[in-house]
This record gives sequence, C-alpha cells and structure tokens, in this order.
Amino acid sequence: MRQVLLEAPFGLSSLALHEREFPKTTHGSVLVAIRATSLNYRDLLVATGRYNPRMPLPRVPLSDGVGEVIAVGEGVSRWKVGDRVAGIFMQTWLDGPYREQYGKSALGGAIDGVLAEVVALPEDGLVAVPEHLIWEEAACLPCAAVTAWNALFATGGVKQGETVLVQGSGGVSIFALQLARSAGARVIATSSSAAKAERLKQLGADLVVDYQQHSDWGKQIAKFGGADHVVEVGGAGSLEQSLSAVKAGGEVSVIGILSGSSAALNIAPILHKHINLQGIYVGSRAMFEAMNRALVVHQIRPVIDSVYPMDQIRQALEHLESGKHFGKIVVRVS
Amino acid sequence: MRQVLLEAPFGLSSLALHEREFPKTTHGSVLVAIRATSLNYRDLLVATGRYNPRMPLPRVPLSDGVGEVIAVGEGVSRWKVGDRVAGIFMQTWLDGPYREQYGKSALGGAIDGVLAEVVALPEDGLVAVPEHLIWEEAACLPCAAVTAWNALFATGGVKQGETVLVQGSGGVSIFALQLARSAGARVIATSSSAAKAERLKQLGADLVVDYQQHSDWGKQIAKFGGADHVVEVGGAGSLEQSLSAVKAGGEVSVIGILSGSSAALNIAPILHKHINLQGIYVGSRAMFEAMNRALVVHQIRPVIDSVYPMDQIRQALEHLESGKHFGKIVVRVS
Amino acid sequence: MRQVLLEAPFGLSSLALHEREFPKTTHGSVLVAIRATSLNYRDLLVATGRYNPRMPLPRVPLSDGVGEVIAVGEGVSRWKVGDRVAGIFMQTWLDGPYREQYGKSALGGAIDGVLAEVVALPEDGLVAVPEHLIWEEAACLPCAAVTAWNALFATGGVKQGETVLVQGSGGVSIFALQLARSAGARVIATSSSAAKAERLKQLGADLVVDYQQHSDWGKQIAKFGGADHVVEVGGAGSLEQSLSAVKAGGEVSVIGILSGSSAALNIAPILHKHINLQGIYVGSRAMFEAMNRALVVHQIRPVIDSVYPMDQIRQALEHLESGKHFGKIVVRVS
Amino acid sequence: MRQVLLEAPFGLSSLALHEREFPKTTHGSVLVAIRATSLNYRDLLVATGRYNPRMPLPRVPLSDGVGEVIAVGEGVSRWKVGDRVAGIFMQTWLDGPYREQYGKSALGGAIDGVLAEVVALPEDGLVAVPEHLIWEEAACLPCAAVTAWNALFATGGVKQGETVLVQGSGGVSIFALQLARSAGARVIATSSSAAKAERLKQLGADLVVDYQQHSDWGKQIAKFGGADHVVEVGGAGSLEQSLSAVKAGGEVSVIGILSGSSAALNIAPILHKHINLQGIYVGSRAMFEAMNRALVVHQIRPVIDSVYPMDQIRQALEHLESGKHFGKIVVRVS
Repeated sequence: MRQVLLEAPFGLSSLALHEREFPKTTHGSVLVAIRATSLNYRDLLVATGRYNPRMPLPRVPLSDGVGEVIAVGEGVSRWKVGDRVAGIFMQTWLDGPYREQYGKSALGGAIDGVLAEVVALPEDGLVAVPEHLIWEEAACLPCAAVTAWNALFATGGVKQGETVLVQGSGGVSIFALQLARSAGARVIATSSSAAKAERLKQLGADLVVDYQQHSDWGKQIAKFGGADHVVEVGGAGSLEQSLSAVKAGGEVSVIGILSGSSAALNIAPILHKHINLQGIYVGSRAMFEAMNRALVVHQIRPVIDSVYPMDQIRQALEHLESGKHFGKIVVRVS
Repeated sequence: MRQVLLEAPFGLSSLALHEREFPKTTHGSVLVAIRATSLNYRDLLVATGRYNPRMPLPRVPLSDGVGEVIAVGEGVSRWKVGDRVAGIFMQTWLDGPYREQYGKSALGGAIDGVLAEVVALPEDGLVAVPEHLIWEEAACLPCAAVTAWNALFATGGVKQGETVLVQGSGGVSIFALQLARSAGARVIATSSSAAKAERLKQLGADLVVDYQQHSDWGKQIAKFGGADHVVEVGGAGSLEQSLSAVKAGGEVSVIGILSGSSAALNIAPILHKHINLQGIYVGSRAMFEAMNRALVVHQIRPVIDSVYPMDQIRQALEHLESGKHFGKIVVRVS
Repeated sequence: MRQVLLEAPFGLSSLALHEREFPKTTHGSVLVAIRATSLNYRDLLVATGRYNPRMPLPRVPLSDGVGEVIAVGEGVSRWKVGDRVAGIFMQTWLDGPYREQYGKSALGGAIDGVLAEVVALPEDGLVAVPEHLIWEEAACLPCAAVTAWNALFATGGVKQGETVLVQGSGGVSIFALQLARSAGARVIATSSSAAKAERLKQLGADLVVDYQQHSDWGKQIAKFGGADHVVEVGGAGSLEQSLSAVKAGGEVSVIGILSGSSAALNIAPILHKHINLQGIYVGSRAMFEAMNRALVVHQIRPVIDSVYPMDQIRQALEHLESGKHFGKIVVRVS
Repeated sequence: MRQVLLEAPFGLSSLALHEREFPKTTHGSVLVAIRATSLNYRDLLVATGRYNPRMPLPRVPLSDGVGEVIAVGEGVSRWKVGDRVAGIFMQTWLDGPYREQYGKSALGGAIDGVLAEVVALPEDGLVAVPEHLIWEEAACLPCAAVTAWNALFATGGVKQGETVLVQGSGGVSIFALQLARSAGARVIATSSSAAKAERLKQLGADLVVDYQQHSDWGKQIAKFGGADHVVEVGGAGSLEQSLSAVKAGGEVSVIGILSGSSAALNIAPILHKHINLQGIYVGSRAMFEAMNRALVVHQIRPVIDSVYPMDQIRQALEHLESGKHFGKIVVRVS
C-alpha cells in the first residue's frame, strides 16, 4: 500500500509517495482504508518545519482522513468492517477539557498522520461519518470543523440571536459561519475580495466587512453593534482588531496564527471590556460527535475549494499557501 | 463637610481638600459618613491622567470607601441609619456577567469617588461590611478583594487542591493568596524581596519564586508542576511568563497593567495549551457579598501596609507609586 | 382609568372592572398605558386562591402586560414617552441567578399586576418590545416565553443538533418549540389531539407522540433515542414519564404543575441516569432581553389562541381552564 | 488465588470464597494484587438482589478496591509493577459528563468487582493512590469519596463561605463533610445519635441537627439560614425535607436511596425556589484524580468504622445493614 512521507530536510519537495507493507491490526485497533484527506494550515507549517523544527522525520503528514474500516483487531467493539469513519485529530482526547498529554497524540504532527492508503488507529480514535456526506466532504471535518465547533459551542457559548465574527474564507472560518448560522446566530465576516464576500453572503453572512479597505475593521464592526464572539484565525496581527470588534463581556477564540504568532498587543481592552480570550486547539471526540449530530440535523455540507489526487500533495499545499482558496482543499486517496 | 478634589491639570499636586455643602438624600439614596478609604493602582493612574486623559475634572478620587449610614432617602428599604456599609466599585453592576454600561458607574473614575467625609450613594450601590473588620480593614475590600474573588471564583473556577500563582505583594495579589488558601488551593507567589517572600509564606504561600533572580520564572514554575490559575497583575510585561507558568487547560486572569499595557506577545501558547485568558474588571455586588460571606467564615483580615490621614492623600499615593508597600494603603477619613 | 381587581373571596366571579385614579409617577418610575395582556395558568391559580390562599386582596391580576410609556418620573434614564415596553415578571430580577427576594416582586401575585389601563412601574422593571410584534403578540412574552428561554438556554444548555421534548400546546410549550427550533434543535412534542399534533408539526415539531394512546410515552420517546432536554409542564403527574424519556446525562426543566404538584415519584432514574432536574421560575430581565434579540433575528411571532376584551377576563380564564387553547390567550386592554 | 463470588440465588448467604486460576494480562491491561476493599450501600443491594434482580450470577462483588500492580500487559504505558492503584467505579468513565454507556462498566455490578486477591483491569480504569493513605484508607475512595466530590465540586459548584448540608454518618456524608470543610464551606449535618453528633462536630460540622427530634428538620435548617447545597442520601423519604432546607437557587445532589426510591413528593418547591436537583452516579476518573490532589494537599484521611477480613464479607455487609457504622467499613484482602 502507498503512503506519503515527509522526509528530512523539511520542505514541500521532501514529500513523496512510498510503497509500504500493509499494517497489521493489534488488540483494540482497526485498519482504515483512507478514501480522502483534507489540508489545514498546520499541515503547511509541519511540512516546512515551521510547526516544530525538531519533529522527528520521516513522518506521514495530514491530520484529517476518512475511510472505510477493513479489519478490526481483537477486542474491538465499536466498529465493524465496512463502517465509514474519520480519525480524531488527537487520538486520546475523548471527552472533557483539554489536558496536556492529549497533544502527544495529534495525527500528522506528534504521530504519523493519514495520507496513506491504509492506516491503523485505535478504535477509540475514530468517529462515525455522517451518512449524507461523500468522502471528500467528510474529510474536511476532523480539524477545521471540530475547531469551529469547540470555539463556538463547547469552550465558547454562542446562543441564538447573538453575533459571531469570522475572518476570511479558510476552512475554520467557513465552518464557523455555517455552524453559527444553524445555531440561530447572526454572522459578520471579513474579506478583501468582492467575489469571496458574495459567496460568504450566500452561505449566510449577514454582513461582510472589507478588511483592506477598513484597516480599523474592528472599530467598524463595533459601530454595527459589535460581536458577541470572535473566531480569531489571524493571530497576533489581527487580534487587536478583534479586541476592538468584540462587545464588553464577549468571547474571542484564538485559533490561528496565519499572520504570525507574535506581535505588539495592547491588553488593556481585555481587562476593561472583561473579555474572555480562549485558546482553541481543535477538540475532543465528544465534540466531534456532537457536531456531527448538528451536521446531520441541518444537512450541512462542507464547502470544498478543490480536490487533488494523492500524488499532487505538494501542489495542494502550494494552493493552500497561495491563500486563494475558499473553503477546504481535499486530497483524494483512493 | 470636607472632600478631596482632583482638579486640572492632572497630577498629584492637583489633589486638595475642600469644604463642601452637606449632600442631600434623594429618593432611593443614602448618605454615608465615610470612615476610611483605600488606594488602588488605578487611583494613581487616574490622578496622573494616565487612566483617562479626557476625564472631566474636578473629580472626587478613590473607589474604595466604607462608613456609616447617617441618613436614608425616601423609598430606601435596604439600609437604616447606623448600618456599616461599603460602596461597590461600579454602582450599577449588581449581579450577572459584566455589561458595557456598568463601566459608566465606576466610583472615582467615571463618577465621583469616596474621598469625602460624606457621600450620597444609591441604596443598591452598597454592601454590608463584615462585622469582624475594623474600618481600615473594610476599606480594603471594594476593588482589590472583589477583583481577586472574581478572578478566582466567579469568572475563574479555582478548586481545592489546585495551584494558584500570584505576583508580588500588592492588594489584589495578597487577597488572592488569602482567598485561594481559604478555598483549599495551593499558592505560589513571586517576589524579588526576601523580606516580602517571608511574609508571603507566613500568609500561606507554599512557594515563593524570585522573579529577578529567575527572569524565566514562568518556566521555573512550570518545572514545579505549573499553575492551574494565574492572577496576572503585571500586564503585557509579565503575561508571557504567565503563559509559560500556567498548565495546559489552565486559566489566566488579566487584571493589571503595572508593567505597561502593550508589549510584544507570543500568542501561540494560548492556542497550544488551550489557555483561558480572562479579563477581570473588579466585580459585581453579588460577588462582593459572596466574598464577604467567605471572609466571615474564615475570619480573614486584609493586610494593611500603612494608614494615612485624609490630608496626606498625596503622600499615600506616592508611597503606592514607590512599590514598597506590602498589602493595602489606607486613607483614614474620620 | 379602569383596572380589574380580584376581590375576596377568591373565585373567577370576584374579578371585576373598577374605575381608579390615574397613578402618579415617582422618582425612577414610569407610567405605562397597557395595550394588551396575556394569561398564564398561574393567573387561574391566583384567581381561584390555589396559588396562595393567603394572598392579600384586592389585587390587580395578571403578570404579562405591554404598552406605551406615557410619563416618566424624575431620574428616569432608560425610557422616554412613546417607548413600547413590557413589564418583567419579577420586577427586581434583573440579571444573574435567581435569589429568594426576587419572588416578592412578582406581578399579579406578590404585588399588583397589569390588567389596568395604566400602571406605574420602576424603570428597571421593563424591557423594550421587539418592533416586529403587534401588541397582542408582545403581550405573550413576559412569563411563558421567558420561562421557555430560561429553561432551554439560560439555566439549561440546549445546543443545535440536540433533541428537546415539549408537552402539549400551552404557552410555554409552544414557545419552547419555536425557540428550540430556531436554535437548531430537533423537537418532539406530545399531544392527544390529532388537530393539535398537526399544528405542532407545522410549527416545526419533528415528531408528535400521542400521550393518551401511549400512557408510557416516556418509554416510547426513549425508543426514538430519547430527549436531551425535557420541558416538563405537567408536574408530578408526568414527571415520571419525563424521567423515562430523557437521555442519561440529560436535563429536565420543571416548570409547571398542571397535573398537580404532589405525586409518588420514583427518584432512582434521577440518580442512575445522572439527570439534571432544574426548577424554572420564569427568568431575569437579562434573559428577556437575550430572548428578544433571538425573536428579532428569527422574526418569531408568538402563537395566539384567542383575544378577549378586558371586561371578559372571566371568560378568558375559563377558556384557559378548559385546556382547549393552542398557544396564548390574550386580553386586550386599550 | 481466592475471590469471593455472589452466586444464585441472591442473598448474603450466597457469598462465598472460591479458589480461581490466576488471571492473565491482555494487551492494555494490568494485574492488581488487591490489598483492601470497602463497602457501599449498593453492595448490599447487589448482594440481596434489590439492585438489579436480573443481574447474571455468579459475580465478584464490590466496586472499591486498591492494591499493587503485579504485572502489566503489552502496550501498557500508564503503570509499572509496584504502583499503588485504585480501580475506578465505572471503568470507562474517564472524563467529561456522564454518558449512558459508562454504566455498563461499573465494577461489582454490571461487571465483576474487586473482592479477589488478584484482578485484571484495563490500564485506563485505574488511578494512583495518594501516598499518605494506607491500604485500608485508600480502599474507601472509589465510590463514596468520588461521589461526594462529584456532588460538591464537579456537577455541583460549592464555594468557600457557602453552607453544605450532609445527612447521617455514612461514607458519602462523611467524605462530603471533610471535603466541604477543606474547600472552606460551612457544614450542617443531621444525626439522631448524640455520640455520632459529637464525632461529626469533631470532624468539622458547624451544626448538627437531630432529625428524629425534629421531624421537620428541613424547616429547622432553613431557620438557621438554609443550605446552599444538600447532599441527599436518604432518597425519596428525606428529599422533601431537603427541598425545605435548601436556599432559593440552591443545589440538591440526589445520591442515595437509603429510605426507598419512591415516595410522594411535592415538587412545587423545586420550581418556586428555582432549585437545581442533580442526580449523582459516582464520577469520572478525572474527578477521582482531582479529588486525590485535594486529599494530598489537605492530608485528608477517610474515616474508617471497622475492618473485616475477606472471609467475613457477610458479617461486614450485615454491619453495614445495621446502620450502626460511622464512616466506612473496610474488607481487608491481603
């Protein structure tokens, strides 16, 4: 069976397809024939060594993969051959709050990921895939959608009638838009592209603010009444605007570091507006399952930007890096 | 009756005693003969124009005052003459989460404060003072103690057996130390003075770390197992160390800006450690009352650094600015 | 101006219209020209002496009233003449959790209610009425809708994708159905009438169970997967079924006592299913405002069963007692 | 190795010692040489068939056991030979809220328990035992202490300065007393024995009410200000008094059914006092670990009533049934 390996030195050109032996089931594990995977910005950071320069190589990349159970090990009770499953981002974060040890089980980072024709995963590290989703759609969920769910509804507490601010048109932001809408919230989005703004409105955004035209977009949004919850994906570069945009007593989910992880930040508004700023690092299996229930009830489908074959993983990552995508970039495996 | 006024231009030398007419009760208000007040760092910022350079002057300074009810207006049902009361920091934040409008009723900032022989306050803007406290002790509660309570037990959720990190020996930090201990938590404190470290240990600190000797004190604390909750009073300057010291999944209460409100900050740990960073802006009347209940049960007494007479308000503030104090600086009124 | 008074002895025939002097504004109060009111089951209990047999009479009945501000007292800052307002059920429960003293300010029970052409209320005891609602619709909100909101989203924590069980077609149940749906939840309803079942489905119920046909309707619902949240309005008589219907770890809001307040109850399921059973006694002003925001975003309109003129308050209450209504019974005042 | 089996038909006389083959480790499991176990009221219900008359027999009884790891299976990373461990009540409830499937892994009920010289348990189903506890003390924790912790601090939210009501002198009640005290709460206890009352006071009870002398003990406690939290172990028989004793807005943890699971109950107070009534079914591994941290910080030791040898399990259960004990009854294994 074939898998992609990231080999030393870091860099997109170090990603290559390899033929490997078929894995074996062990007690409590299952074999999953991966059908599709999807990319997250973290995968780009991992591949280029910016995520963790000391990560041991070679490593199988990508955290998000879905497929079919083709074998079950001894003692497995949750799955049977033929089940459609997705791997959870951190294989050991099943329920409850985040704890330090969970980070050591993150797919495509701390441990090998899912860009392979067959992977072996513990039975606890999987969730069932919603029936209404095709493989490419289901592959979009494990990191970006669960992150959005955790930010808005698990760690965060968005309620109907409230206003959520999402930024740009990456995977997390679009899931946050879709999920906030299906929970009865209003959504303000930011975008610098008129075409993307139009698509965001079609997806349900009540207002789209052009962040290039308004460098003080946080203040602009505050003028419209502000946001109860901000899904902050930009990092230090946009956090200051988010602190401006959020209402007193509001929540800011810190998710991404697209514009860099370090910047001068005026923290006074956090204090004077009694803001809750919450770091979000994907989410638990229980959150994934709760989200899937919502996806089924509302028949929500992930927004796919493009689909690449497995052997074009480099081009797929380059497309991600270009920032031209709208929604998720999928890599089809088999 | 006499009161202190802060007049234009800002500066400690613009604080002076004035004779004023006795205030009158209105419907729903009471007159309080102030006995004692206490200083908070904010009072220094207010007086020197750093808190809000556009604050209209003159203004009666200070937020923290306690005294005796000497007259009640029509319709007042909560108080009678002779009651011992403290004004709440924001006169309109009675219960529930912080909301923007409350900030407009902050004593000694948005509205006139309590450094006066008699003040008129709405009956809802007061709480009863614990019986075991003398006036000087009770005067320490409204801002610093309520802030510590809100950080640890209202917005924050410290539980017995957990570890709380407090910084230095200012009012909020010492209250946080006392309250964390009486709730059954362990406490780590920071100090650069051996003498202060000794006193912090006497108050119950399980460990005191010298932050001058260890400029990477956050990492040092992480080595000891880290903190479940950090009461961050230093501002941008120490926040990065606090993010290091706090455990994965932990809480950081952002309270003060002693070392400046703006600084370069690496936000990646917030995300990767799933940290909850919560701005704390004092607290509600309900929090004040819940805290008083705890003070009574544990017979906790505020730690007083020094007591100044009313006409030495400038010297009192200069002492605060020196940073040499340990605990609260009190200004006795009558 | 005219008002209805409930006089001794208790009984529907003790309700009569009286001419009274126009009330005066006092400091902090406003005069509201009531346009419409609505009935709750509590109003029937009050009028017949079953709510509190020792309630002092005469009393102006009804808790739910809306109208226009026609005069504002000294010191009033929240309202101006012409504002459309609704009285909050307990005049002093503004924010935060329920506290004992709030019960002493319940309209139409502990204090005089709103079935009058003009009432004087403190400015804090009112909320703005959503613009898209006519008077009859707005009059339905203060008790039943706020109760449903509190049960589901304030004390309770219903999330999109979850399943809510509502019972019958009274005011609280229909609001719970509408609000649960607009928050993205699924709804199961119970009804013994095919016609009502049809209307419940039109309002969005995903499933309607006939509780007369299935006396073990709790078990029936458990077979369909159970409910994450039950809005229990029947009282002791139906609670046992609700404990059957709710999932392990689920929530049951105890709201009503239609079928009596006392009954033999097997509490073992509460323990073994780790159920959270929460008494709900209407809600705070902050809940009312949050709910109004949701009503506006979703343009939700209360379901009105019938509208009576003020002088037919007895007939209106008799209609309520008959149980034939679907939604709210309104009494128009002026 | 020897183990006790409960054989058909149910009854204490059906408990007998048997010689069995030494169990084998499997992937992910460890062998624990049990040193001590403790009894809970549930064990009596199980043995006499009142807990679940359809429970398949034979079954190894008891949920609470501690001992030493003597062998580790393949893939085990959490434990090594020599570790002192306790089994968690439900082997699969690791973290987060209760979910239905966890009940299927309850030791000494749904699955075989721990009254055996050696048991094999999955590595995830164990916690480390606090160092300061001897085997007999540690054996008291898994059911009763974790239940008390969950009631007060996980599902419940007791804070310092609040008042907790505990009933009688069984295991859960005494742990609740000790844990509430170390969290800074006040404690009211009930007892009908002057001698037990004295011991409860020595353990920190601020007040002990004689429930036989005062059949309306709930009202008596309300007169003293009431309780913020009631740990209800009596079941339907005492719940009505607990609803009387608890403050408006307070919490009642429903834990036990000592006085029967079914009784006529007036639910009106739940509603009118906005009471939160929460079923508590032991707790998760994460709760166990958080509690252990508190036990260590406060050097809390369980209160042991008596210690029986393994072959006197029947006498031990008879002593439990007598209700004469104060604290936990331990059964020593090896």
